[in-house]
Amino acid sequence: MFAAVIHGPGDVRYEERPDPVIVEPTDAVVRTVAACVCGSDLWRYRGIAPVPRPTPIGHEYCGVVEAVGDAVTTVKPGDFVVGGFLHSDNTCPVCRKGAHANCLHGGGYAGCQAEKIRIPNADGTLVATPSMPDDDLIPSILTLSDVMCTGWHAAVSARVGPGTSVAVVGDGAVGLCAVLAAAQLGASTVIAMSRHEERQKVALAFGASHIVAERGDAGSTAVRELTEGIGADCVLECVGTESARAQAIGCVRDGGNLGLVGLPHGDLPVNDLFWRNVGIKGGPAHCRAYLPQLLELVLARTINPGLVFDLELPLAAIGEAYAAMDQRRAIKSLVRP
Amino acid sequence: MFAAVIHGPGDVRYEERPDPVIVEPTDAVVRTVAACVCGSDLWRYRGIAPVPRPTPIGHEYCGVVEAVGDAVTTVKPGDFVVGGFLHSDNTCPVCRKGAHANCLHGGGYAGCQAEKIRIPNADGTLVATPSMPDDDLIPSILTLSDVMCTGWHAAVSARVGPGTSVAVVGDGAVGLCAVLAAAQLGASTVIAMSRHEERQKVALAFGASHIVAERGDAGSTAVRELTEGIGADCVLECVGTESARAQAIGCVRDGGNLGLVGLPHGDLPVNDLFWRNVGIKGGPAHCRAYLPQLLELVLARTINPGLVFDLELPLAAIGEAYAAMDQRRAIKSLVRP
Repeated sequence: MFAAVIHGPGDVRYEERPDPVIVEPTDAVVRTVAACVCGSDLWRYRGIAPVPRPTPIGHEYCGVVEAVGDAVTTVKPGDFVVGGFLHSDNTCPVCRKGAHANCLHGGGYAGCQAEKIRIPNADGTLVATPSMPDDDLIPSILTLSDVMCTGWHAAVSARVGPGTSVAVVGDGAVGLCAVLAAAQLGASTVIAMSRHEERQKVALAFGASHIVAERGDAGSTAVRELTEGIGADCVLECVGTESARAQAIGCVRDGGNLGLVGLPHGDLPVNDLFWRNVGIKGGPAHCRAYLPQLLELVLARTINPGLVFDLELPLAAIGEAYAAMDQRRAIKSLVRP
Repeated sequence: MFAAVIHGPGDVRYEERPDPVIVEPTDAVVRTVAACVCGSDLWRYRGIAPVPRPTPIGHEYCGVVEAVGDAVTTVKPGDFVVGGFLHSDNTCPVCRKGAHANCLHGGGYAGCQAEKIRIPNADGTLVATPSMPDDDLIPSILTLSDVMCTGWHAAVSARVGPGTSVAVVGDGAVGLCAVLAAAQLGASTVIAMSRHEERQKVALAFGASHIVAERGDAGSTAVRELTEGIGADCVLECVGTESARAQAIGCVRDGGNLGLVGLPHGDLPVNDLFWRNVGIKGGPAHCRAYLPQLLELVLARTINPGLVFDLELPLAAIGEAYAAMDQRRAIKSLVRP
């Protein structure tokens, strides 16, 4: 089969690789229908994270089950499935608490920007659709592999609920999905912080009640003006940089909550936040916990998170899929084998 | 009137001071029925926090209203009242969110270990009992001024709810009240970490299901053994030192929550906690938000947090009240004028 392999900064190649096979009786092999490039893949593409050796890359996928191990009981060959960016057994004590990203027996994949993928812990990871989904739903289903679940995780972590005010820092695919999550979870004010017209449009389509284009102190002031002068109940930080974290801290009210899902590249002034009674929660998303509910919303066409994809290419053009996101010509690139 | 004044490390004196008077129309003056010494008062008594000049001290009280300003409508002279360790207006946007400790117009008092106390924002701070309470209820009512509300705040901040597992780090008055809070909020496992037999007894009376006497790694291991091997859903950190915070981190499960109420003397590894999806929340307690509910539980004799007081002295013996706590001869000292 062919798959994407990162060789170093700016160098993702479409290469022949061995076909994945069933190794453990709990494995499945999935024939990819769609995969995509994640903002977090760009850390290596941009040379910020190291690439010690050529490595298959990608962690988002949906597709059709091709084979399953003897122990797999909940999915079968021919099923259309989606799974989160980490596999999980869905049975360990941590999974039973709903914290699947921290499953005692979970982990990542050997590259999902590929024609085929080996899925460990298939029963605890994959969720099948009742039938083959309409093709126009594929992008939205694919977002459940990471960005939509991650935006949802930011909102849940920050205790978004009916009537809350929410500000979202970051207008990448995750930030936009966080806007959608906040609106779905009943927030009465949903402020998307974005300077890009195309992304503002998606945010509004996802349920943002307000757009704030300012950044820094001006951005925090604008958010406070929309929230009785005190800041938002919940701020969803979907970038991870030091400046994004500072922006989030500037936008949250005393006693409020930060939901963090941007990969951390900076510290937090926890003792200042203590005196302000500001909560902090977040991390890698518990996709498997959220997948059934979110898949239902997608299949019912209640939500359309697939709007975050503004570029679709063949898997063979994976290099351009990365370049377009790196150069911010695309919010998020979808690839199909 | 007479009041406690701290002059420096180890030096708290009983001194004559001017009688407090109504300054603002929103003020009340309360004749103290009982006050007490807080673990946080010991930071100055022990020379860890500075005492730049002789300063009236104490922030916990209950008593009888003696006078009110023209704008006060909810309490009147003769009412028995209790208020939190910070005053609050209960009307600003932050208070309306329930975050009274961060009230836009709140603050502290000019010393509550005193015969009389001026209470700013009387309407937004004081809660009156329906009638004069029985004398044996005074200690429990007094805990609502700080330690019981602070233990409750730790539990609420850590999302303690029905069926959760909870570990409490710290067996001072706040830690013991946190045990009581966790039990009241429906936790199914409540682990009190304590090496002191007297304090263990109070913890058990307050609803602890288990006592862990070990500390450090042995303590974390013991907590994990009681929680399916993964750690507690919620850990309430009621000390504030670096080692107590490390203990809390060692006892919490991935995806769980830390409730912090110990005054912070150390940092937190927020990025490690990010990967573990562990939430952090806490700070000064929102007493006014919790007071009505907790006062009802005390008056109905459902809870008896006054058990944390194991020494009662006249206010004139305030020096000994401090010394006994400093030398750990007492968990908490109550003083009466």
